[in-house]
Amino acid sequence: MTIAIINPNASHSMTQQMQASCLNLSLHNETRWYECLASPVSIEGHSDGVEAAYHLLEKIRQLENSDVPPKAYVIACFDDTGLDAAREITASPVIGIGEAAMHAASFVSQSFVVMTTLERSVSILERNLSHYGLVNRCGGVYASGLPVLSLESNEESYDVVRSAASNVLQANRGDALVLGCGGMSHWVERLQSDIGVPVLDGVRIAITFADGFISLKLATSKVAGYAWPETKA
Amino acid sequence: MTIAIINPNASHSMTQQMQASCLNLSLHNETRWYECLASPVSIEGHSDGVEAAYHLLEKIRQLENSDVPPKAYVIACFDDTGLDAAREITASPVIGIGEAAMHAASFVSQSFVVMTTLERSVSILERNLSHYGLVNRCGGVYASGLPVLSLESNEESYDVVRSAASNVLQANRGDALVLGCGGMSHWVERLQSDIGVPVLDGVRIAITFADGFISLKLATSKVAGYAWPETKA
Amino acid sequence: MTIAIINPNASHSMTQQMQASCLNLSLHNETRWYECLASPVSIEGHSDGVEAAYHLLEKIRQLENSDVPPKAYVIACFDDTGLDAAREITASPVIGIGEAAMHAASFVSQSFVVMTTLERSVSILERNLSHYGLVNRCGGVYASGLPVLSLESNEESYDVVRSAASNVLQANRGDALVLGCGGMSHWVERLQSDIGVPVLDGVRIAITFADGFISLKLATSKVAGYAWPETKA
Amino acid sequence: MTIAIINPNASHSMTQQMQASCLNLSLHNETRWYECLASPVSIEGHSDGVEAAYHLLEKIRQLENSDVPPKAYVIACFDDTGLDAAREITASPVIGIGEAAMHAASFVSQSFVVMTTLERSVSILERNLSHYGLVNRCGGVYASGLPVLSLESNEESYDVVRSAASNVLQANRGDALVLGCGGMSHWVERLQSDIGVPVLDGVRIAITFADGFISLKLATSKVAGYAWPETKA
Amino acid sequence: MTIAIINPNASHSMTQQMQASCLNLSLHNETRWYECLASPVSIEGHSDGVEAAYHLLEKIRQLENSDVPPKAYVIACFDDTGLDAAREITASPVIGIGEAAMHAASFVSQSFVVMTTLERSVSILERNLSHYGLVNRCGGVYASGLPVLSLESNEESYDVVRSAASNVLQANRGDALVLGCGGMSHWVERLQSDIGVPVLDGVRIAITFADGFISLKLATSKVAGYAWPETKA
Amino acid sequence: MTIAIINPNASHSMTQQMQASCLNLSLHNETRWYECLASPVSIEGHSDGVEAAYHLLEKIRQLENSDVPPKAYVIACFDDTGLDAAREITASPVIGIGEAAMHAASFVSQSFVVMTTLERSVSILERNLSHYGLVNRCGGVYASGLPVLSLESNEESYDVVRSAASNVLQANRGDALVLGCGGMSHWVERLQSDIGVPVLDGVRIAITFADGFISLKLATSKVAGYAWPETKA
Repeated sequence: MTIAIINPNASHSMTQQMQASCLNLSLHNETRWYECLASPVSIEGHSDGVEAAYHLLEKIRQLENSDVPPKAYVIACFDDTGLDAAREITASPVIGIGEAAMHAASFVSQSFVVMTTLERSVSILERNLSHYGLVNRCGGVYASGLPVLSLESNEESYDVVRSAASNVLQANRGDALVLGCGGMSHWVERLQSDIGVPVLDGVRIAITFADGFISLKLATSKVAGYAWPETKA
Repeated sequence: MTIAIINPNASHSMTQQMQASCLNLSLHNETRWYECLASPVSIEGHSDGVEAAYHLLEKIRQLENSDVPPKAYVIACFDDTGLDAAREITASPVIGIGEAAMHAASFVSQSFVVMTTLERSVSILERNLSHYGLVNRCGGVYASGLPVLSLESNEESYDVVRSAASNVLQANRGDALVLGCGGMSHWVERLQSDIGVPVLDGVRIAITFADGFISLKLATSKVAGYAWPETKA
Repeated sequence: MTIAIINPNASHSMTQQMQASCLNLSLHNETRWYECLASPVSIEGHSDGVEAAYHLLEKIRQLENSDVPPKAYVIACFDDTGLDAAREITASPVIGIGEAAMHAASFVSQSFVVMTTLERSVSILERNLSHYGLVNRCGGVYASGLPVLSLESNEESYDVVRSAASNVLQANRGDALVLGCGGMSHWVERLQSDIGVPVLDGVRIAITFADGFISLKLATSKVAGYAWPETKA
Repeated sequence: MTIAIINPNASHSMTQQMQASCLNLSLHNETRWYECLASPVSIEGHSDGVEAAYHLLEKIRQLENSDVPPKAYVIACFDDTGLDAAREITASPVIGIGEAAMHAASFVSQSFVVMTTLERSVSILERNLSHYGLVNRCGGVYASGLPVLSLESNEESYDVVRSAASNVLQANRGDALVLGCGGMSHWVERLQSDIGVPVLDGVRIAITFADGFISLKLATSKVAGYAWPETKA
Repeated sequence: MTIAIINPNASHSMTQQMQASCLNLSLHNETRWYECLASPVSIEGHSDGVEAAYHLLEKIRQLENSDVPPKAYVIACFDDTGLDAAREITASPVIGIGEAAMHAASFVSQSFVVMTTLERSVSILERNLSHYGLVNRCGGVYASGLPVLSLESNEESYDVVRSAASNVLQANRGDALVLGCGGMSHWVERLQSDIGVPVLDGVRIAITFADGFISLKLATSKVAGYAWPETKA
Repeated sequence: MTIAIINPNASHSMTQQMQASCLNLSLHNETRWYECLASPVSIEGHSDGVEAAYHLLEKIRQLENSDVPPKAYVIACFDDTGLDAAREITASPVIGIGEAAMHAASFVSQSFVVMTTLERSVSILERNLSHYGLVNRCGGVYASGLPVLSLESNEESYDVVRSAASNVLQANRGDALVLGCGGMSHWVERLQSDIGVPVLDGVRIAITFADGFISLKLATSKVAGYAWPETKA
């Protein structure tokens, strides 16, 4: 059985990097990784999100129509782009990396802090946080100022993120750090070691949750907000 | 100067019906009406919303690139489909009919009730309500069970909506009714007369607000969450 | 048809200044401006508010009993002094400049900041904000320290307000500024130009909304919290 | 030393009835009872409240200027009419009977229910409840439909209130009853006996708190929202 | 590596029943089951909880001092008895079955309903729900009226719970059911089949999460609220 | 009649110090002071709290079984350790010093600040604050960094607390200070004089409230969350 992990943006290198950071996970199911080539190369703001959600749904419909559809889906963008819509068009569970990381953080800390990329993403994440109910468990959502694609690489980016994270943890008395972009996934162990608080990477957590949901036979409710789409007259 | 009113679904008859219900408005600006022909014929749930938002953005980009771009936009779906994304891609104000009706209701009542179409839309509207901050001013969001396109017409539909509205107003001690779908726009005066509380139709209110925003020279902030989209590398 | 704009304090020069800042609005209705000569000369705190509300109601009752009562009322104090009581004693819509500005800000920004006069007014405005539901859309309410009547005039006052506004916008990552006193109305364009984010002046917004409500035939609900006053035995 | 208990309405018989219900309280200070003869005879809604607050402040100013000003004040209207303004104009503590009863209820129950007089008062009390922070501790605010002055007397009124209270306690799984009008004060023991849950009467609780605050030397803060009124230029 | 699942009450048969319902889970780690023999036989209310928490901590300290301490802990009482204290005294992650079920429900539904045992437990669970942030995702917490130990067995109990669950799901428009007691664990599949919405059993979910947290190397933060206990002077 | 004041920790000197600070209170009832010798010497964090709550219940049961049980109980730890459980096992009212101080603060200020001992206690107090409903009335909970037992004595400790309190009051625009530990009780007058805002000490306030509740015959509800413990089969 397989878990489909879909990066809603078009960056194959980002998909690869996230995949690499998940190699050491113990899973009962196979993972398959996808990106959405018609999407923007990175999701930075609402309009990128609308386009990416559109192509994400296309990808999920295509997988659902395949011979052996996935048993679970992970949406590998911290904005949880298209999450609710995805839950309408499949019976398998769908997990966003943002919700996975933020919920998990509430199991190991009293007040986590989220470090994302650009200031423009902050209000998107705050709204998700509010919808998930975790506002009171979060000391704040902050942006390092580094765009998504700059995270793939170098030492300089790492230093900016580590330094920004330390500052906001201290200023907000936070006791855990949530990485607010899939592109930071490869830094999780290094950051945890440097900063001294739990560091949560949504990619690995969401996949682990998806693996567990398959074992638990947990599926999305189909009676109200996530019912199958209406047939139009 | 013009206000562009965009119905994000593909139903031209619904556009026409909304337009008809706005004939008696006093406005300083001209209105232009559009629908999105590649969208679903009605927006019922999250996945319809993702598709409609995608085509709505296309339409706005096209109007922005026209010789005389609109001075304001109205999104004529009560879900406020694509509202935040739209605000990124234009400097003109963008107003959703859902937010317009619900905010306006809070000026004339202590506790309004929203009557929408299908149960599946309730959680979408509740989330918007929460984002707009109006949860404590709303006695509840309820569905009549009638799909969007059935609203265009007949006496039977009217009776279902009127009866459902009366019931939830009483059960929730509501003092105003918000029509939770653009397709109910043509019933506003009749319902108000039958039910005896203010009835708020987002289509007419949003256009009136858009007209006023133009006079006030109020434009969307471009410094954070609604900044112009990033240029990708 | 007329909109009555009532300044609940006794300062005629403040009424004149607000009126001057509204000259360029496009309206369908005539405006008439009033102050309350028996009120304190400025409303700074709760007890000033109680007195001003008392005299405001007197003025509204008097206008209601005139030959041609106004079709809408605007209460031109940012505390929205006496707003709910006013809605009981007239069938015409009543709009406060505070609520108008703060609701409007939520249409053009993700997180606005309010700059008012004295620290003592902050908790009054925070409570209004909470009642309107906009707490999560507001980065904070701050006081410049300048009393109401000092705003009428000079360059020095302007500099204090502009500087305070810039600081709190930055500290709170705000993307719009709401002017927290009718006396700042004349600075709206200058501040917007100097600060680079939308600046919202409740006086002009409330009048524009009142003008629109007349066109929409929107009236206050008379069935519960805003019902006509009881006849006493 | 004295506690001034001020009924903000004009009904002397209501004052007398409240006073009678307080005869068995053990207090360290003397009580003095007042009403506001220029006020409406009962406070039912916002505009009654504005007038009553105005006359309440007059009364407090007069007492403050007397030879031996009171050491504490109780505002004997469940709406807590003029409470914040009163706190500005005296250094002595001021306690509203509504806040006293609702806070006290949170010490002896998990979820109290409020039974008030007319539907129009519900939204006023809900707003106070929200300001006091007790929304989550309250199962709901309900109206018996009986106007304030009808509570003074007869068996029939008692039956209406008792029956309404029982119903809303059951429907809301409440475990305590708060009497939402000073006029119900004389029923507290009888209701408690008939209904079987704690019944809280704000008049007696507020006076007891005032008595304790004098012993504790607790006074209202004078540095921000409750600072002494500004001297006008 | 092992996961310790501790039933904080003294009922061995309840432990056995929960264990039986977990036989078909796919896990990477071994499970070890414990109860607390000095605790009450069931946890029904606050004082039972205080005693059970005390003995739970004893058990955890004993396991921490064993040769091979567990890699994760599950607290198998839906009240999440002693959860925060447990997180102080071990470096391994600790998961409550209540929090696990309610968080998981928010991944597969828009509005879940909790069905617990006795009315007295409702306020305890509501407070947990509020702390976890999931109030807005929960349609309500209800009690079947059946005490904990009566759940172990018979057909009659099943019918009471199934019927109560169906009623509250309908009345609250819920789309998922959370089993509010570990003792209902063995009914999860049968209920799901009978009721037609996802049914969430915290025991199995918490163990699955614990298994995943071990794989993710997620540990409790030790810098603030969950820091190791202070050494007393 | 007596009020039992129980210090849930084992420190007799702390009990004595609190007792000394209450000498000048005017009360109608006698006070009796206790500590819990089997508890930790100070309560700093969740696991200390679990142990202290266990021994607190033992003490209350013992007093309940004495010849003349107390008429009211005060729990003299600012965490309100075991408060809800205590309310189950006695019919007399039980008041925590934390809740007493924080509720009282909301009667004399618009925004109080809490100064406690160690950072680890902050999240405990924030959760209590949230349960009591007073989040919006509190500018923040802060720790001086001084452990509980260091508060008993010297000038240096006083300076640390006074300085920390001044700073957070200013930074949060607070207008009252709540002492977040019973061990600070003896500083209340000195701090109030030095800082210039009302300073609230829960020990004295809770005892005064308990004294008043006895006069009011206010007892804990016994119908739902605080019902007498279940008899186990």
